[in-house]
Amino acid sequence: MSWDGWLAEQREARERAGLQRALRARSVDEDVIDLASNDYLGLSTHPEVRRASADAALAWGAGSGASRLVTGTTTAHGELEAELAGFTGRRSALVMSSGYHANLSAVTALADRDALIVSDAHVHASLIDAARLSRATIEVVPHNEVDAVRAVLDEAGGRRALVLTESVFSVLGDAAPLPELAEICAERGALLLVDEAHGLGVVGDGGRGLVAGLGEAPQVVMTATLSKSLGAMGGAVLGSDALIDHLVNRARPFIFDTALAPAPVAGALAALRLLRDRPELPQRIHRRASELADRFSVSRSAGAVLSVPMPSPQVALAAQAAALDAGVRVGCFRPPSVPDGVSRLRITTQAGMADDAWEHAVEALTRVVEQHGGLP
Amino acid sequence: MSWDGWLAEQREARERAGLQRALRARSVDEDVIDLASNDYLGLSTHPEVRRASADAALAWGAGSGASRLVTGTTTAHGELEAELAGFTGRRSALVMSSGYHANLSAVTALADRDALIVSDAHVHASLIDAARLSRATIEVVPHNEVDAVRAVLDEAGGRRALVLTESVFSVLGDAAPLPELAEICAERGALLLVDEAHGLGVVGDGGRGLVAGLGEAPQVVMTATLSKSLGAMGGAVLGSDALIDHLVNRARPFIFDTALAPAPVAGALAALRLLRDRPELPQRIHRRASELADRFSVSRSAGAVLSVPMPSPQVALAAQAAALDAGVRVGCFRPPSVPDGVSRLRITTQAGMADDAWEHAVEALTRVVEQHGGLP
Repeated sequence: MSWDGWLAEQREARERAGLQRALRARSVDEDVIDLASNDYLGLSTHPEVRRASADAALAWGAGSGASRLVTGTTTAHGELEAELAGFTGRRSALVMSSGYHANLSAVTALADRDALIVSDAHVHASLIDAARLSRATIEVVPHNEVDAVRAVLDEAGGRRALVLTESVFSVLGDAAPLPELAEICAERGALLLVDEAHGLGVVGDGGRGLVAGLGEAPQVVMTATLSKSLGAMGGAVLGSDALIDHLVNRARPFIFDTALAPAPVAGALAALRLLRDRPELPQRIHRRASELADRFSVSRSAGAVLSVPMPSPQVALAAQAAALDAGVRVGCFRPPSVPDGVSRLRITTQAGMADDAWEHAVEALTRVVEQHGGLP
Repeated sequence: MSWDGWLAEQREARERAGLQRALRARSVDEDVIDLASNDYLGLSTHPEVRRASADAALAWGAGSGASRLVTGTTTAHGELEAELAGFTGRRSALVMSSGYHANLSAVTALADRDALIVSDAHVHASLIDAARLSRATIEVVPHNEVDAVRAVLDEAGGRRALVLTESVFSVLGDAAPLPELAEICAERGALLLVDEAHGLGVVGDGGRGLVAGLGEAPQVVMTATLSKSLGAMGGAVLGSDALIDHLVNRARPFIFDTALAPAPVAGALAALRLLRDRPELPQRIHRRASELADRFSVSRSAGAVLSVPMPSPQVALAAQAAALDAGVRVGCFRPPSVPDGVSRLRITTQAGMADDAWEHAVEALTRVVEQHGGLP
């Protein structure tokens, strides 16, 4: 088949299934209440974060110039890594250009053909891609089923095993049973990789995430993103000194990538310091998320993302458009971004938002969801 | 084997082979002539680029808030994409968070199990990883051998085929025979993916890269980075409207990644405009690169990177350290970053540098290379 024919056929299939997507640009001065962004704490636009990011661009320039091992590592990267590790109670941290990169780096540097990956069925696409790229043997276990993880590890036969999970899952908003998983892994000599993309800044003591609650836990590899609650961009891997040394030397997605630019590095650091100084900030997420869950009669979320199931991808899209008409932007989960094929409105609660804007948004969304058959 | 034991064994093997790497941070006010950075035109620190990047952080905040399809696409992304496509003579462009991501996105969205990838033996790690992740059949052909590409395509038997190459190769600094490859691909209905990471801003008419010289060439998929001659961070895929629409819908590394932050987007756009207004800028790279090649009796580079072979990885490291002692930072290619196992000093020529600094650096490097057995 020709490439042109194949591209056209693929597009037609998406259109028939109601899954065709297009980019829509927002303007700097748009008049919309944004409940789609992952900037849960509103720190991306905090004056101190904007200023720190801008100052870094003025001081260092717009880019880092090369990969981290060549000349891309600045003292700003080192500062961020030290404070990120300190905040989350890890020994060491390594900053990357995205959270996707952090997962790809950690998994591919650790798991080779001789290793076994045990992956929760609901992990993020970046972990799925990372596992595929690693060429390790992959066992997918049912979502959050501790017994299944234990059973697979007991059959591992001495292979190095890496268990993949998230602290708070993006789509369903539930949390992983981390203490149990950490114990199982420690007992069996396995590593436990926990993606804190939706946990850092949201859950745990003062927003430290759920890994921090495990104590030192040398068997745990933590990954995180700087682009959600920390309001900037980039990702990080956190763990033992030996782990980080290994990644610096062996993680191809880290080695062969230009370093994160100074502006987002400084922005993330300023946001981290604000979070550290205001341990009460994440609580506002949970109050609002619970209020919204009760309003829509859906399960409460462990994190900031609330999912409201919709009858079909087409209706989910229509509801999203109706919300935007009412001045509220929400996200829309459709295949392939959902683990179970069910399309959903994706509403992120925003701690930084003023009460009147929040209440206005909740009222508008309630009407939209009612009109689109998303309420029982 | 235990994870601790495995990590220790891996490190010991690196140390024995002289391949252990560590990060070294540079400070904002260091007194070093930097011939390691890929900021070939010096645009990263150009006042207009710094200012544009800082202004974007102030106006938009430190991050884009979410993936491109959710709420991460800003009008700034759209402006950069339109001007990048216009400058390189492509129909459409899609900006990503890194060049690694651009290659991963383009290859994995196009090549599935039914496709055939024909890869030049010297392509960048990101293209190798992309091909592996795609699960397509992979045929590696000898470096720059047009006949080998033709032969593989003639045996493809109607499969959709994607040929991977670079316009200017990073390590050896040679250029690909693009007109011949483009013709072969057009005749056989194959796509030709050309990574312009080291070409954009360096080669072709006014720094437009080598793909621009092919004309419309609908069979060509171009990838590029915003972190080298454009001085910021990020990457891009350029090609037909149907290609970009396909990537928006199917490229998992694009869909599941937070959008590039506004600061690097604006920095890259300001740099692109400077380059467009000063078509003579790249010529200075070539004058200096040729001067350096002649001085070291190595092959002239088609691009900005000059490789000076060294007797061993250990000697290459010692020479790099000696250069730094003399006030000049250069890079060092060691396995696995070289296609042929030969360690090299990696010297990038810098168009933006004042003549006296450049001449001082050349003199210092000449002494270092002589002392380390790198000259004939």
